[in-house]
This record gives sequence, structure tokens and C-alpha cells, in this order.
Amino acid sequence: MNVLRDHGDVGDAPSVPPPLAETDPVPRLSAAEAARTLLAGTNLAALATLDGSGAPWSSLVTFGALEDGSPVLCLSRLAEHGRNAAGDPRASLMITESALPADPLAAGRVTLAGTLWRPAGGSAELAAARAVHLAAVPSARIYVDFSDFAVWVLAVERVRWVGGYGRMDWAPAEGYGAAAPDPVAPRAAGAVTHLNADHRDALLSIARALGGYPDAASASASGVDRYGIDLIVETPRGRAPARVAWSSPLTDAAELRAASVALTHRARAALEQS
Amino acid sequence: MNVLRDHGDVGDAPSVPPPLAETDPVPRLSAAEAARTLLAGTNLAALATLDGSGAPWSSLVTFGALEDGSPVLCLSRLAEHGRNAAGDPRASLMITESALPADPLAAGRVTLAGTLWRPAGGSAELAAARAVHLAAVPSARIYVDFSDFAVWVLAVERVRWVGGYGRMDWAPAEGYGAAAPDPVAPRAAGAVTHLNADHRDALLSIARALGGYPDAASASASGVDRYGIDLIVETPRGRAPARVAWSSPLTDAAELRAASVALTHRARAALEQS
Repeated sequence: MNVLRDHGDVGDAPSVPPPLAETDPVPRLSAAEAARTLLAGTNLAALATLDGSGAPWSSLVTFGALEDGSPVLCLSRLAEHGRNAAGDPRASLMITESALPADPLAAGRVTLAGTLWRPAGGSAELAAARAVHLAAVPSARIYVDFSDFAVWVLAVERVRWVGGYGRMDWAPAEGYGAAAPDPVAPRAAGAVTHLNADHRDALLSIARALGGYPDAASASASGVDRYGIDLIVETPRGRAPARVAWSSPLTDAAELRAASVALTHRARAALEQS
Repeated sequence: MNVLRDHGDVGDAPSVPPPLAETDPVPRLSAAEAARTLLAGTNLAALATLDGSGAPWSSLVTFGALEDGSPVLCLSRLAEHGRNAAGDPRASLMITESALPADPLAAGRVTLAGTLWRPAGGSAELAAARAVHLAAVPSARIYVDFSDFAVWVLAVERVRWVGGYGRMDWAPAEGYGAAAPDPVAPRAAGAVTHLNADHRDALLSIARALGGYPDAASASASGVDRYGIDLIVETPRGRAPARVAWSSPLTDAAELRAASVALTHRARAALEQS
């Protein structure tokens, strides 16, 4: 991950208390996995195309995605973006988290850049692309067969993922194509709400025993993914983020509950031994 | 308003029962007013810029807007869009309704296209633009003075508004600059909810007496703006949209309640006389 290093000194960067205990490094979703997860979470994107003069044009589109993460659009040639795509196939698609945080620049988003192409009429590629689009955008059945609409596939060449302030990376196009969406993502928000409502004591044990903050006074969950759980820890020294890995990466959202219970048991056992 | 006329015949367009009584034409927000209303409703947009090769790049930005509707961005030169803007100032900004309907292509959105420019350091224009951005994006205070960030203003040259399926128009740039956001918009969703929860009888009277549907069996509100109220009317002949004007355009959201009451009285008086 790159981190912004050149903001200049404005003298008021918040300080974060460091951990007091060593912790194992915890894997995170790769930029490719995070990008694929964002695509799996919505059917809505902002498309950038080029008008006849080569100027950029930003528009709203719906999309589905092929197995390799190539977005499938359905564009009318009566709309600017449809005419633009027909004139110059270079395009870029930006997708954000569907539930944006209060500070939207803290949100995850991804920009895909590449070239739009139209699968040939009657081809298996067209049938597959059309099916993927309709599955993601049920209301497209109303217009997908209108004569002015055409199915376009974005061949992805560049993938820029931004995970919020100072978290960003390029994903190699091949890695993007091969990566899978985080299977935990569809239930992550619900799990975080549940953990914070009913299991604050467990989160505190995890933060103290496994998160590097034995002086934690309270802890809340800020996120979960297939690799682990993100915590916000309150200590007498201030507030800090912490991250703890599950025993092994999850392959299904249904494993979240058992993984949380296992982590709590591990934390409590460690605290009893200390 | 233009209406799409070239979809070809797919043979299953839904039919809508026509009104049975003549009604006065009801003004709608102009494309310029609708565009300004969208900008007033959010601080989040999708920016399209050009990379060094002239290819489009779509990214997430926050913005405020000057009195004339010119968006003010705060871009880092460490980010692609900041570098792109410095290399070629042509840009386009797309803004959607902040609360998207279930079918996102039924949502209102606007594309602004124009040229980005940087107010000179120390100028009154920079101070004004910076203040407008900070008022709209409070969290920007954290980074607005970082040395890699700069304030950019989009000089708007083209305005394309889309109000949902088949509702779209270009707004002249001068008209856009002079138009005002709908003052009713911030309370429109709440008013619709309230009318539908507590005043279905009043909506039915309005639909029967003033909306052109004397055979209405029920009616609900689907939207309100400074010029009038949009209804969905159920009749034995099917479902139809209707629109009824307030007695005069509203200038403040606080007038919504009195305008609704006045419309109900007018409708009931007309029904008693018929």
C-alpha cells in the first residue's frame, strides 16, 4: 500500500497511541480483492467517456460484471455516453461503496480504466454479457432490447483502488481478473452492528489480548472482512485502530459467527493465562 | 423536454389511462432549476478528467458550489485527477440525487461539462471558493491546506439534466448560472411521507377534482416541488401519474403545509359543487 507522504507539515496531524504488545501481522484484502468486492456490492457506477472533441463526459450507468470482473453496460446511442463510446471506446468506470460513510472521502472506491467493446450480435459472448447485465439490473429488461440500446463490455486495463484517506493502490489487471470478491462483505455491516450492540465485552477481550492494546478501556468493531476484524480501541493514551486476524480466512459469510466466537475464546484464554 | 422516440417497437410498453377531465398545464422545475437543486442536495460527485494520453478517468470528489453554480473542488496533485486537471483542464462532473430510488436509472442526475481553473493564490476568488468548499465539505479542513491540495473551480459550459426515464434536457449555461435550487427540495421527501401516511383522503380529493382523474379510487404523492405536487392515481382503468399546481409557486419549504391545505380545500369545494 502506498501512503501519502507529501502533504507538507500543517502541524495538527492527530497522534495515535502505539500498541503496547506485539501482534502478528494481519492480512488485508488486496487492492484487487477490494476492487472486486466493491463491484460485487452495487450495480451503479459513474462512467467517463470522450465526446467528439475529446473532452471528458461523466454519466450515471448501471452495470453487471463478468466472472473476470469486466463490467457490462447497456448504453443507448440516444444518450451522450452511448454516442461517445461509439466514437472513441476509451472509458473509465468509478464505483463506490454502496453505503457511504458520513465523510465520503473515507469511503472505498475503485476506478477501472480500459476499452469498451461490443460483443457481436448472436455471439455467445453477447448472450453471456446480456445475462450478466440483466441479473445485476433487473429493470434493464424493459429497455435492453430497444433498438437504440447496445451491450458494451469494458476490457479493464488499469485498476486504481482507494480505501479511504491514505489507503490506495494499483491492482495489476491480471490480478484483478483473477481475484474474488470478499464473501463476507454482504453481511459485514450487519455483523459489525451486532458485535457492537451485543458483544462489546468480547471485543474488549480481543483488543486487550490479541490487538496489542492491553490497556484498552473499551473497543468497538469498525469492520470485518474474510481475513479479520478491525477495531477502534479507547485507551487512557487515546484512541487507536487495531486489527486482529481470524484463525484462518473465511470462505463464506456464514462462518462469521463461529469465527467471532473462536476469536473471543482465544482472547479470553490468553487473558486468563497472563 | 425531449422524450426518447426511437426505441423501436418492443410491443410491451405499459399503457396509462388518460385523464377524464381537462386540467391546467402545471409548470415543472426547468432543467436549470433541477440541476441546481441536485447540486444543492449533496457534496459528492463523480469527476471525469483526461489522463496524459487523453483517455478518460473517473473519480470520486467532494464539492461545494459558488452562487452561480460553479462547482469548487479540492484536488491533490498526488491523485490521478489532480495531475489530470493540471495537464488538461477539461472536465465533467456528474451529480445524482442523494437518496437514489430502487431503480437508479429512474433517479435525477446532471452532468456538467466545462473547464477547471485555479483561482490565484491570495485572490478574493480563492478565498471565496475555499470558503464555499469548506462549508459544503467540513472534513476538508483537515487537508485543504496540505501543500499537495489545490482549489479548482469548474467553469460550466454544458449542462445535461436527466430526470429519470425519458425526462431530459439541456440547460443553457447562462440559465444554469442564474437559476436557483428548489427551496422545497430539502423537505420534499418528508412531506411526501407525511402526506401519504396521514392525508390520503386529501390526496384523493385533489386527484379527483384537480388532477383530471374523477374516477380515482386512491391516490398517493410521489413528489413535491415549488410548483406543485406529483400524484400516483389508481383508477378502475389502471394506474396513472397526475400533477397539480399549488396556487402559486412556493418560495420556502415552510409554505408546503399551507399550500397542501389550500389545495385540499380547493379540491373539496370543487367536488361539492360538481
